[in-house]
Amino acid sequence: MTKCAVVGATGYTGLELIQILLKHPKVELTRLTTRQKDAIDLKSLLPNAGNDCTLQITTYDFEDVKENAEVVFLCLPHTEAAETAAEFRAAGKIVIDLSADFRLNDPDAYDKWYGITAKHAELQKTSAYGLPEFYREKTKQSDLIANPGCYPTSAILALAPLLKEDLIETDFIVIDSKSGYSGAGKKFRESSKFEEAQDNFSAYKVGKHQHTPEIEQTLSDIAGKTIKIAFTTHLLPIYRGILSTIYVKRKKSVKPEQIRKALEDVYKDEPFVRVLENGSFPTLKDVRFTNYCDIACHAAEDSEQVVLVSAIDNLIKGASGQAVQNMNVRMGFSETEGLK
Amino acid sequence: MTKCAVVGATGYTGLELIQILLKHPKVELTRLTTRQKDAIDLKSLLPNAGNDCTLQITTYDFEDVKENAEVVFLCLPHTEAAETAAEFRAAGKIVIDLSADFRLNDPDAYDKWYGITAKHAELQKTSAYGLPEFYREKTKQSDLIANPGCYPTSAILALAPLLKEDLIETDFIVIDSKSGYSGAGKKFRESSKFEEAQDNFSAYKVGKHQHTPEIEQTLSDIAGKTIKIAFTTHLLPIYRGILSTIYVKRKKSVKPEQIRKALEDVYKDEPFVRVLENGSFPTLKDVRFTNYCDIACHAAEDSEQVVLVSAIDNLIKGASGQAVQNMNVRMGFSETEGLK
Amino acid sequence: MTKCAVVGATGYTGLELIQILLKHPKVELTRLTTRQKDAIDLKSLLPNAGNDCTLQITTYDFEDVKENAEVVFLCLPHTEAAETAAEFRAAGKIVIDLSADFRLNDPDAYDKWYGITAKHAELQKTSAYGLPEFYREKTKQSDLIANPGCYPTSAILALAPLLKEDLIETDFIVIDSKSGYSGAGKKFRESSKFEEAQDNFSAYKVGKHQHTPEIEQTLSDIAGKTIKIAFTTHLLPIYRGILSTIYVKRKKSVKPEQIRKALEDVYKDEPFVRVLENGSFPTLKDVRFTNYCDIACHAAEDSEQVVLVSAIDNLIKGASGQAVQNMNVRMGFSETEGLK
Amino acid sequence: MTKCAVVGATGYTGLELIQILLKHPKVELTRLTTRQKDAIDLKSLLPNAGNDCTLQITTYDFEDVKENAEVVFLCLPHTEAAETAAEFRAAGKIVIDLSADFRLNDPDAYDKWYGITAKHAELQKTSAYGLPEFYREKTKQSDLIANPGCYPTSAILALAPLLKEDLIETDFIVIDSKSGYSGAGKKFRESSKFEEAQDNFSAYKVGKHQHTPEIEQTLSDIAGKTIKIAFTTHLLPIYRGILSTIYVKRKKSVKPEQIRKALEDVYKDEPFVRVLENGSFPTLKDVRFTNYCDIACHAAEDSEQVVLVSAIDNLIKGASGQAVQNMNVRMGFSETEGLK
Repeated sequence: MTKCAVVGATGYTGLELIQILLKHPKVELTRLTTRQKDAIDLKSLLPNAGNDCTLQITTYDFEDVKENAEVVFLCLPHTEAAETAAEFRAAGKIVIDLSADFRLNDPDAYDKWYGITAKHAELQKTSAYGLPEFYREKTKQSDLIANPGCYPTSAILALAPLLKEDLIETDFIVIDSKSGYSGAGKKFRESSKFEEAQDNFSAYKVGKHQHTPEIEQTLSDIAGKTIKIAFTTHLLPIYRGILSTIYVKRKKSVKPEQIRKALEDVYKDEPFVRVLENGSFPTLKDVRFTNYCDIACHAAEDSEQVVLVSAIDNLIKGASGQAVQNMNVRMGFSETEGLK
Repeated sequence: MTKCAVVGATGYTGLELIQILLKHPKVELTRLTTRQKDAIDLKSLLPNAGNDCTLQITTYDFEDVKENAEVVFLCLPHTEAAETAAEFRAAGKIVIDLSADFRLNDPDAYDKWYGITAKHAELQKTSAYGLPEFYREKTKQSDLIANPGCYPTSAILALAPLLKEDLIETDFIVIDSKSGYSGAGKKFRESSKFEEAQDNFSAYKVGKHQHTPEIEQTLSDIAGKTIKIAFTTHLLPIYRGILSTIYVKRKKSVKPEQIRKALEDVYKDEPFVRVLENGSFPTLKDVRFTNYCDIACHAAEDSEQVVLVSAIDNLIKGASGQAVQNMNVRMGFSETEGLK
Repeated sequence: MTKCAVVGATGYTGLELIQILLKHPKVELTRLTTRQKDAIDLKSLLPNAGNDCTLQITTYDFEDVKENAEVVFLCLPHTEAAETAAEFRAAGKIVIDLSADFRLNDPDAYDKWYGITAKHAELQKTSAYGLPEFYREKTKQSDLIANPGCYPTSAILALAPLLKEDLIETDFIVIDSKSGYSGAGKKFRESSKFEEAQDNFSAYKVGKHQHTPEIEQTLSDIAGKTIKIAFTTHLLPIYRGILSTIYVKRKKSVKPEQIRKALEDVYKDEPFVRVLENGSFPTLKDVRFTNYCDIACHAAEDSEQVVLVSAIDNLIKGASGQAVQNMNVRMGFSETEGLK
Repeated sequence: MTKCAVVGATGYTGLELIQILLKHPKVELTRLTTRQKDAIDLKSLLPNAGNDCTLQITTYDFEDVKENAEVVFLCLPHTEAAETAAEFRAAGKIVIDLSADFRLNDPDAYDKWYGITAKHAELQKTSAYGLPEFYREKTKQSDLIANPGCYPTSAILALAPLLKEDLIETDFIVIDSKSGYSGAGKKFRESSKFEEAQDNFSAYKVGKHQHTPEIEQTLSDIAGKTIKIAFTTHLLPIYRGILSTIYVKRKKSVKPEQIRKALEDVYKDEPFVRVLENGSFPTLKDVRFTNYCDIACHAAEDSEQVVLVSAIDNLIKGASGQAVQNMNVRMGFSETEGLK
């Protein structure tokens, strides 16, 4: 049994991660911690955790976690994660960081989009971007795994095969994403915006979403050239799920069927990506509570426009499920362990 | 008082129209009809119509409507509307048609997108496309007004000023629209799709929505050249409202502030279009139960990409409210009569 | 394979029934009919019916159904069902009637609560009230099965064991029921009440709900004396499910634990009733899409008040699932066939 | 202008209270405080507070609040409020306490239902129970006002007139209440129960809700004899509102119309209680964002059962609106100031 700790256990992703790890056959959950001053019964936050669950969420104590865990999952706010990760790395632990702190290679981009100076940028070099479908080998060998953002996961998995095969024009990439409000985090839940979002729909952070550079960096890496995107995020009046509608142009020399084939070829052996059959399109209910990313495409003879639609559960494939998938990759477990 | 009839009174748009006309100070509602075989108390479908409301929805009888109405609103399914409109026009009535039957100038486009042969295409020449912000003069003089579709209203009002002023590239126009399920009509409400749409989100009719040619035709007319769009529709788990997110590229010679100025200039005297201040974006709650179209734009120095967001109530500015606005224009009433 | 027909296939209960019967291993669906004038592809109303489903919903034709079905399910409006049932009974068919037409023994009660004169009251004598938990033997032997109402199913299953064992006072029975809007039927869905019910909550038909005499009749029969209830129905802003909260007083001589024991004893071998453990209470999600009725009780030493909470899926255990359970009983199939 | 402070500004009721006070013409909001260690811009929690709003929510500092406020609103968790109230009372401030700490006259009842020993029970004697419709005179003269609970407000306003006039039996009082999830507080919002409550419905704390003794104490006081109730609370899948359905028996000597008359007589001059006309019943949308309590009753000749239905906005009449109403009463302002 691998001893695991969750640091930052009380937010949306922390609680979701704990629920997955509690059922993982190769994991022993040894420490759950919070920056709050009082310990909390896990059962008070997760009433369904099982009647025999006596786990406590305790006040964070570095030494205590260090002694009791081999793998440390960080579910901390941006910038707080970097410092904590550095400490656990120095202590030889495997760190899976669900924040954005080690996702961007360029510290200036981090500064610009997150509004604060990147810390421990030196660790960035040895970290892996934990999108297993494209970075599995690096993830196997890294002790610091930067778990991808939710919107980037939904966008990159749809676009990457087309860019890798050089099938589309790159001056024309539009990503229109819609997310349930669990993606908006704790602060949102506590502000009056939460009530306004009920029975409503709106765009937010237009032109300013901090996941933009993460998507551009990863797509550029896969395409082998600089990729720029237009990216807008919206808030759905439901709890969980992200659906991204993506617009690109296929190259004139590329036939519509090549688009579908590229998706099918890349994902045919992937356990968590499903390319839907022609004419079918994903819905959020299809992926809810699963680690799947469902992808569909529409390409036709009479136009070079291609529409891709991808759907994930933002808390699972977009966060905690993918973190466990990364742990499975890193530890040499079956990649679907605890996730199906 | 202008005597008005609503033919096809029992669907979403018919009932919404009746609610507006009941409060219109210059209208007397004389006939409400249905193709069903039994008459229905209006109060059974509109319990809030007022305790003294004794209006009946009666079985459709052309002669009876002809004798009792000056203005006939048609809320009929596509193709049924054309024949009925032809009869009322032959009888000298003013017809406001909420169906798609007279929106497309090209009968072949109608055939292709609606799957049936256009009827009474000859009437098309004398009809007006009832988007008052751009076709007010023609609407004043026409006795057959084709009321625009809901998605086209939301998309055209945002894009037209930029095309009219030639500010944007025209090979790159993406319209990503999201609608409440009242836009999906009666058939949807009766199928199991309705239950699936609860607490869910999905794209539908990808690459195939019948509003595509209407948007392209109108934008082409305003731009003075052929416009093609990429257009995807989605179903929101709420009752009413359409929000469209639109992606274009400004021309290299055009500055970001010119985009906003073009919108403000075109709409500064329009009673039902509000251009939001810089940094604000519309939500569906802001326009619900109103005849407003709210429009926002995001344009920046560092990229030529421009994002437009528009929001309407699909049943009001996207259907019945706009129909009343068109009647006001045609009859010479104040354009806001009964709508504010 | 038993040949089955569904007469009245396009309403909520008809479509739900078809979905269950399509998967039932011992049933062949031979006829689906509607009173509308045109045939409808089943797939247009049930898109998930499977790609190879070519069933048509055809215009009702008595002779055609008679020749092609052994069991006829009636999903017709009240009063229409009685006449159709009489015809099929005269033709020797087994009839399972989902309407209220044969639920009430007393034609005067039918008149009073449904506002119309009962038809074919003579058939009432040979019909069975299809609540298998209490009328299984009679159902086995009857060719006309009156399927219980949704509210009565949720209320009777909770109360009947306590009345049967004479554990509670009978001058004090309050049933407070809350239903999703699929229970409100087609007319509701077409009126403006439907929109008002979104994001809202209210009581309706206070003191006037037509299920009152059905509950009273059945409880009286089981108790062996006349039972009167106070019964109020409410509309939840969700699609499906009924939760009833029921208030009674235990007799002074009865101990709290006897209440729970009576429930457990009656239902210990029932496949579709689950008595929850002490301290647990049902939620609608727990029974959604199932034929279960979940029941919980709260009884304490310091008060004679007893609270019962029961939950069902109104479209399944409250309608179409129970109809199939009744067919299973009548045909000698395993009672859970097609329902688990 | 009356200088007011809100202590405990970041919860549901604190934020709602601030929104009301910001618009109150006779109030200057001088201090907003939190027990958290860092100050927070009010605008980050209330984005709609207005562009010129620069108020800060600061770390709680007794001396600072004492020097800057005349009226102190406490939106603190139970037991924390009592100590803070005692300090402000000792400093001569008017205290309006939204917690339960001074609602119960009997410290043992507080112990039993809240699980902790009551503090500063001596202050209880001088406090007023702030339900203006029944305790207006005492509220005018008290400097410590215990603002009623949300469920008690909805239940007492419906029942009190019937008990005051001795019209109903008192061994038979059932209160079945349903609340939006904003009533469940911050802890609920942070636990996984919040997600389970989406698109769901259930009873909770059956037989154990801590508002039971508050309702019983107040009804007993008004009735002049000991009143016991059966009370069950449920969680609606919407944000705000409480609807209570109440079942009683009128005395045999009392006629149905006396029930309605008692309600109308008591409330005919009350600004915030509306008795609906015969046959109408309240919905949550009718009272949302208002300080109204809507009450309806059903009483008939053929049965002694009486059903009452009351509806309030739990955050306004059930908490912050009523707190402002109490301040208006205490300060001699018009009772509707800032509330209409």
